[in-house]
Amino acid sequence: MAHKHGHVRDRIQFANAEDKQEFSKFPTKAGRRSLSRSISQSSTDSYSSAASYTDSSDDETSPRDKTQVNSHGSSDFCVKNIKQAEFGRREIEIAEQDMSALISLRKRAQGEKPLAGAKVVGCTHITAQTAVLIETLVALGAQCRWTACNIYSTQNEVAAALAETGVSVFAWKGESEDDFWWCIDRCVNAAGWQANMILDDGGDLTHWVYKKYPSVFKKVRGIVEESVTGVHRLYQLSKAGKLCVPAMNVNDSVTKQKFDNLYCCRESILDGLKRTTDIMFGGKQVVVCGYGEVGKGCCAALKALGAIVCITEIDPICALQACMDGFRVVKLSEVIRQMDVVITCTGNKNVVSREQLDRMKNGCIVCNMGHSNTEIDVASLRSPELTWERVRSQVDHIIWPDGKRVILLAEGRLLNLSCSTVPTFVLSITATTQALALIELFNAPEGRYKQDVYLLPKKMDEYVSSLHLPNFDAHLTELSDEQAKYMGLHKNGPFKPNYYRY
Amino acid sequence: MAHKHGHVRDRIQFANAEDKQEFSKFPTKAGRRSLSRSISQSSTDSYSSAASYTDSSDDETSPRDKTQVNSHGSSDFCVKNIKQAEFGRREIEIAEQDMSALISLRKRAQGEKPLAGAKVVGCTHITAQTAVLIETLVALGAQCRWTACNIYSTQNEVAAALAETGVSVFAWKGESEDDFWWCIDRCVNAAGWQANMILDDGGDLTHWVYKKYPSVFKKVRGIVEESVTGVHRLYQLSKAGKLCVPAMNVNDSVTKQKFDNLYCCRESILDGLKRTTDIMFGGKQVVVCGYGEVGKGCCAALKALGAIVCITEIDPICALQACMDGFRVVKLSEVIRQMDVVITCTGNKNVVSREQLDRMKNGCIVCNMGHSNTEIDVASLRSPELTWERVRSQVDHIIWPDGKRVILLAEGRLLNLSCSTVPTFVLSITATTQALALIELFNAPEGRYKQDVYLLPKKMDEYVSSLHLPNFDAHLTELSDEQAKYMGLHKNGPFKPNYYRY
Amino acid sequence: MAHKHGHVRDRIQFANAEDKQEFSKFPTKAGRRSLSRSISQSSTDSYSSAASYTDSSDDETSPRDKTQVNSHGSSDFCVKNIKQAEFGRREIEIAEQDMSALISLRKRAQGEKPLAGAKVVGCTHITAQTAVLIETLVALGAQCRWTACNIYSTQNEVAAALAETGVSVFAWKGESEDDFWWCIDRCVNAAGWQANMILDDGGDLTHWVYKKYPSVFKKVRGIVEESVTGVHRLYQLSKAGKLCVPAMNVNDSVTKQKFDNLYCCRESILDGLKRTTDIMFGGKQVVVCGYGEVGKGCCAALKALGAIVCITEIDPICALQACMDGFRVVKLSEVIRQMDVVITCTGNKNVVSREQLDRMKNGCIVCNMGHSNTEIDVASLRSPELTWERVRSQVDHIIWPDGKRVILLAEGRLLNLSCSTVPTFVLSITATTQALALIELFNAPEGRYKQDVYLLPKKMDEYVSSLHLPNFDAHLTELSDEQAKYMGLHKNGPFKPNYYRY
Amino acid sequence: MAHKHGHVRDRIQFANAEDKQEFSKFPTKAGRRSLSRSISQSSTDSYSSAASYTDSSDDETSPRDKTQVNSHGSSDFCVKNIKQAEFGRREIEIAEQDMSALISLRKRAQGEKPLAGAKVVGCTHITAQTAVLIETLVALGAQCRWTACNIYSTQNEVAAALAETGVSVFAWKGESEDDFWWCIDRCVNAAGWQANMILDDGGDLTHWVYKKYPSVFKKVRGIVEESVTGVHRLYQLSKAGKLCVPAMNVNDSVTKQKFDNLYCCRESILDGLKRTTDIMFGGKQVVVCGYGEVGKGCCAALKALGAIVCITEIDPICALQACMDGFRVVKLSEVIRQMDVVITCTGNKNVVSREQLDRMKNGCIVCNMGHSNTEIDVASLRSPELTWERVRSQVDHIIWPDGKRVILLAEGRLLNLSCSTVPTFVLSITATTQALALIELFNAPEGRYKQDVYLLPKKMDEYVSSLHLPNFDAHLTELSDEQAKYMGLHKNGPFKPNYYRY
Repeated sequence: MAHKHGHVRDRIQFANAEDKQEFSKFPTKAGRRSLSRSISQSSTDSYSSAASYTDSSDDETSPRDKTQVNSHGSSDFCVKNIKQAEFGRREIEIAEQDMSALISLRKRAQGEKPLAGAKVVGCTHITAQTAVLIETLVALGAQCRWTACNIYSTQNEVAAALAETGVSVFAWKGESEDDFWWCIDRCVNAAGWQANMILDDGGDLTHWVYKKYPSVFKKVRGIVEESVTGVHRLYQLSKAGKLCVPAMNVNDSVTKQKFDNLYCCRESILDGLKRTTDIMFGGKQVVVCGYGEVGKGCCAALKALGAIVCITEIDPICALQACMDGFRVVKLSEVIRQMDVVITCTGNKNVVSREQLDRMKNGCIVCNMGHSNTEIDVASLRSPELTWERVRSQVDHIIWPDGKRVILLAEGRLLNLSCSTVPTFVLSITATTQALALIELFNAPEGRYKQDVYLLPKKMDEYVSSLHLPNFDAHLTELSDEQAKYMGLHKNGPFKPNYYRY
Repeated sequence: MAHKHGHVRDRIQFANAEDKQEFSKFPTKAGRRSLSRSISQSSTDSYSSAASYTDSSDDETSPRDKTQVNSHGSSDFCVKNIKQAEFGRREIEIAEQDMSALISLRKRAQGEKPLAGAKVVGCTHITAQTAVLIETLVALGAQCRWTACNIYSTQNEVAAALAETGVSVFAWKGESEDDFWWCIDRCVNAAGWQANMILDDGGDLTHWVYKKYPSVFKKVRGIVEESVTGVHRLYQLSKAGKLCVPAMNVNDSVTKQKFDNLYCCRESILDGLKRTTDIMFGGKQVVVCGYGEVGKGCCAALKALGAIVCITEIDPICALQACMDGFRVVKLSEVIRQMDVVITCTGNKNVVSREQLDRMKNGCIVCNMGHSNTEIDVASLRSPELTWERVRSQVDHIIWPDGKRVILLAEGRLLNLSCSTVPTFVLSITATTQALALIELFNAPEGRYKQDVYLLPKKMDEYVSSLHLPNFDAHLTELSDEQAKYMGLHKNGPFKPNYYRY
Repeated sequence: MAHKHGHVRDRIQFANAEDKQEFSKFPTKAGRRSLSRSISQSSTDSYSSAASYTDSSDDETSPRDKTQVNSHGSSDFCVKNIKQAEFGRREIEIAEQDMSALISLRKRAQGEKPLAGAKVVGCTHITAQTAVLIETLVALGAQCRWTACNIYSTQNEVAAALAETGVSVFAWKGESEDDFWWCIDRCVNAAGWQANMILDDGGDLTHWVYKKYPSVFKKVRGIVEESVTGVHRLYQLSKAGKLCVPAMNVNDSVTKQKFDNLYCCRESILDGLKRTTDIMFGGKQVVVCGYGEVGKGCCAALKALGAIVCITEIDPICALQACMDGFRVVKLSEVIRQMDVVITCTGNKNVVSREQLDRMKNGCIVCNMGHSNTEIDVASLRSPELTWERVRSQVDHIIWPDGKRVILLAEGRLLNLSCSTVPTFVLSITATTQALALIELFNAPEGRYKQDVYLLPKKMDEYVSSLHLPNFDAHLTELSDEQAKYMGLHKNGPFKPNYYRY
Repeated sequence: MAHKHGHVRDRIQFANAEDKQEFSKFPTKAGRRSLSRSISQSSTDSYSSAASYTDSSDDETSPRDKTQVNSHGSSDFCVKNIKQAEFGRREIEIAEQDMSALISLRKRAQGEKPLAGAKVVGCTHITAQTAVLIETLVALGAQCRWTACNIYSTQNEVAAALAETGVSVFAWKGESEDDFWWCIDRCVNAAGWQANMILDDGGDLTHWVYKKYPSVFKKVRGIVEESVTGVHRLYQLSKAGKLCVPAMNVNDSVTKQKFDNLYCCRESILDGLKRTTDIMFGGKQVVVCGYGEVGKGCCAALKALGAIVCITEIDPICALQACMDGFRVVKLSEVIRQMDVVITCTGNKNVVSREQLDRMKNGCIVCNMGHSNTEIDVASLRSPELTWERVRSQVDHIIWPDGKRVILLAEGRLLNLSCSTVPTFVLSITATTQALALIELFNAPEGRYKQDVYLLPKKMDEYVSSLHLPNFDAHLTELSDEQAKYMGLHKNGPFKPNYYRY
């Protein structure tokens, strides 16, 4: 029964044309970043706070040209500087404090070693948080080879710490495009080792295996993918009948979605605005374009801090929700002159046009919390009659001929990734979901999963949540036998039908 | 494409054993009430406020024994007293003020008369709000014969007003069981008139037709059903291969669900508690059992008014939501001694047991906002050592031997139906959904719907919402052609994939 | 030092001309009600819910013409029917459950009997709640004679219960004006008993003593007064040099003010609107006129339930607070056309004029939470071109010639007194404050209080609060000696300077 | 009448012993900072964000040793580098955008030049915001000489911009103690110029004049002081009969207090925690010690973002408010083991003791939003068995022998000053209040103010508010003549009695 669960191939919505690029197209590093909806990719930005006190090395030698050996004598890795391992270890330990779900998973599953025999090749951001994931996989029995999904986001010390403990890591901060693919290749193409599981974030690793080592798929039991882009590519492959192993779409699991969107944005909208502009929220007139999960999170937070919020919507159901939640539903053109802050979170393009930018009042702040950098027509602002003045990192004043200033944040890119940080707890949700997806695919009986894309079974989604409840000292109630029978439920779940909306 | 929409036959969850009674079992009036999850059935209770100043007739003659004629000379109806029509008309007019969506639907669809040719036999509560629905159907071209789905809930004046304008109504307050079926029979079995559409609330009308006039189904284009119970029966028929016409499950449409649960309960929990106990909410310690839509609504309202709320949950995903929303997740036994108020909304049974009732503190208020009267083990309180004292309508003090009083509301039945009212606006959502479902089924091209149970197409759900937006002076934004293309959407919707959670 | 506390003679603000009526003017019952700001006087309305099931006696004989004896053989009282005592006792017991502060005061002060020797003559509403106060005074050693301050508000059963236990009560529901003064006279003018303390609510008792028995003041140690009207009269007497005993203004103590205004209105605005109109709050556009404590309470509650609230203000400081709290500050004329609900709480007159009523949209609800019935110009609506239709108790539809209906609640009188109830907890705050004021005045050393009007010392205000904390299971922290020294405070308070704003 | 307004000499509460230092004691720079309650002094910290990209000069020459001339040929100033004037001008212009109240004051009062003839000597932080104040004073007719009240907080570019326009500024970042007094002396002791108004922040300037140039007071019409420390010194002088000119305490004006405490802390608690720890607020268990204005602000914000907040209090009135606002009132020792975050805002000392720090759980965050750095017993943590690890600026991990980490922010100093910023809008409130106080004192008729300390007249407090309303597009309602008469108010205020609590 479970094997049909969550098959959503023909339901997935794609937000923009960029996403629909050919899978086979060579992905540029610059382009990919903006494609990704996944908040976990924010480590590009967030790690900078940590890095400020760690990455002082001036060593300009390429890691590919160095020979490094860890304390166990292994040199099957390539990182910036293996000597930074101790510092990276501390970073990992600090991250572990907020990722107790994974630690708990290690303990619960350690006896049975559910990943014994698993050979995982992974391609993700390499940060303290993903290190906790990788080391959890190892603790559960897996062998891991790992590379970075982003050329800028690697925390070198963390990579060193992983290499030191024996994980074959190939990644450093500031890779070239050539380095990027070289690292992936070194991960996949290892003498005497063949991957049987793939954990990917963005689809580049999967792409490389398809292109260079298709025979690897004979042994692979499944692919776990967390990004919108990568998931989209998998659905395209599936549609084209070219997907040759089961794949798990962890991006759309309930828990991850709620944390990446509603809960995370509720906090990061305040943080992103405050860090960049020191704005006082009380009494500010704000329009939020889009009342989906991201918009709901933004609106709730801003209202709670005393802002006066209205919204724009194209969908009457979301618009009605906004009404019932106490927000006026307006057209942008009706209110644009009065607004102190304009926030986009529609996933659409040109939601804020040059015409509307022209009508904004002096001092209006414009920013984007949505899918990509298309929502605000930033290009239209790069015209000779307007002056750009960079007043802080991520903050530009666009100055009109009459002296009016509009304050543009992060040049219209995602505010929460550019100007805020992602709490480790959110990353823990994602990492735990990935670990469980690997366990599920690796241990699934023959035939449960076919050559298709699946959502994480609801029961596992529930398990991810349950692993995070101890962080809140939350105590679940258990059904009695009588109650379970009355409800027609198993005592251990799943507790809701698939269509339940939460 | 649309014909596959929303087919949820194998997904529907049933909350309790009572619901699973045989369809063929003769439904008792007493039993049916508690089966119904539909909030719109609350008119049993809510109409009492209106009735207090209307229903002073002492006429004890059964309407079946009277001969009445309306001013147009027709006597094809049976109501308490046709002379009350004028008063009923005023009630309908007042209801129309808050049901502008239906009035707007009348105007928009009046020219095309989308129900021209429709012969609708209906069985619902007969109140001012359903009268607005019935008269809308008539305005759209339908001929209607109507009866009551509940023996207590008919507003006699409203029935008279409908009869006066020519609707063949068979209903009065205080019918006997025999009257009940007689009325249904008179609706269905009319000389020279054969129904081609059925609008049902609870399934009794459908049942009667199946049993007595199966040939009617040859002409019927579809059934529209709004109650949990009735929908359940339809799915059972479908499963058994006995459903011989398409049926529309309007109970589970997004808009109706949100209004029946989250939004309506957010308001009625305060109202129900206040009207019965005059409690001050500030600082009260409250435990809400269950954090589904109903629980979320209750918690939001109580927290907003200064209560200190914790919740119990069996589902880790809902529990994690509760944490993120700022509620402690506890087991009932951990907190029961400290609570001022205990509210159940789980859909389960014996959530509050006698043991827990024994441990409550003096003055603790216990009530139920959930599915039926099973959540609190009220039966266990009917024991000789406890004294029951009725202090107000719907309010009992249960007194322990040591003098401790527990305040039980509505004897554990649904608080919001028993002790609060349902805003006309919520009923408007339901009625509009029913009207659109009738239009859809009546006009669907051959083959779009088969002999199965369907959810309302998302586009129509969106239309229901859009018809209610003018109440809030809400202005929708329209997609430009370019934006629609970018999003891969039609400009008029549907705007979201089916699995979207809102 | 304490003897100067709270002397506010020249600071008190009077809200309207009616309040400034001459003290010597004969008070009409009709007029007084609207003069009173004190929420505790709401028993006129609120007791009706209780009375509905108690007061079925058809006995038309005037109590003044009956001879009744309680079970102890005393006949020094005059109530409707002494036989209702048992029922009244139960009402008192139920009230005691929510007035644990007074019960606790009884216990704490019982040993020392701080009112031993006190002979208190009292004139208040006679309800279950005031009965708990009276019996507390008795438990603390006082002898009490009592009469009603309102001709409609007496709960006959409660009066009987008090009479049964030996309190000399002279009060019944539906007194005539003559009865009213006769009852007061019987209280004051008792053979062999002379009052030495006065507890008044409205000033009528004080007035009567001034007029008829001025010599009584020779023995009286002080007056405790809780109403705006009565306090105003006392300040006038004081100004005129005619106040011959100390008086305590308990109306303006911090705790009572917060509960009578902010906290109580936060709850009663929802309740009052819901009971009368069954309105759904979500998405409603509401304008609240005045952002004082009452306005703040109304706005907080309505916003929390999803209404979209804007305010009007004359005071820029309050207006700025409204901005920071997230409410648009507008002129009424700017928004009146769009509003669903208009609420006045300014203390001013003609805040809603006929011109504005003319511009309201169909279905707009208008009500008053402010000082008196002057805020809405109701008189202007009593003109021939408008039709009044009473649709429920306290609800009138005013119908314009074009069919527009405006829904006027309680004919512009106080909504929360007319259409809601006052929680016992609020009344407990008031009653405890009164009891402590009596204890303070009765036990104050010679010279602490002069012939002037005083506020309750802050330390006693703090004590009132502390007695109510156990209701919330709240645990105060105590200062260490070192901390008290550091703060320059006594460990038992007072903890704040007099000008502290809370 | 106004001359008696707000005389609070004997009411002011002092929070700690440090404040009670002798006025004549030589103030150390280190000590003074912690004495100050005034949030406007936060520029020490907040300016760092701006300074990061401005102050790159490596010029080590002391400004006292340089000869600089502005473009008008004047050299009557001493700043770091007059050439930075242009950059400073831009900073001032940006600040002007959020200080429209002052700009508006310039316009309204420009014609009458209410400060014509005023010679103001000032000692405040020198930042873009105070520059807007100073230039406003100049626009209103004043001549100004200015110096810095803090040796670290001067924005050199801003000082240069002021000097360039002709203000005699003596200040730079990183003054020595000797420089500090030298600058003050240069301000006061100018050839051919004698101050007749003093604007002080901290009391050092006033102190210096008292000590060195007492004859200056013969001409001085008044002192305006905004800090707790400075105000305390003035009250001491007044008490001792040594205050020889009127002084205005602007620290305690209603508007400034609300913004410095409730509104500002509501925002900065979130910002301070987020910037330092990237904490996710949802579901966090937080205890806030103290429910005054600061505590109220912190609690409101944290609750709104989904934290579960409880409070500790010594004052039963504040404790009861907390209950009604939905917060459990506990003793710290009862909950300390469960808390994720501990926040102090009591103004007291050792509120969080070593014993409680020992009992905290791993990862608990501890910080202070209260008066000074005394609230957390940080000294007790500097013991050999504990390891301190600085993980970020302002963030220390204190590590117990068993590995438990407690996260201490800003070493127990004020979190919002150390780790957040103060919005320009809050500084605008303060600056406007200062400007109006200067105007009032300078223009007051002979005899209105004596040699005493005064609060700003309520009418001026209202005026400060009204000048800030346009920022919110807020429209005040005006009283009609009839309404003003009815309320007994002047149409232009003041609108509330002095004791009004807001």
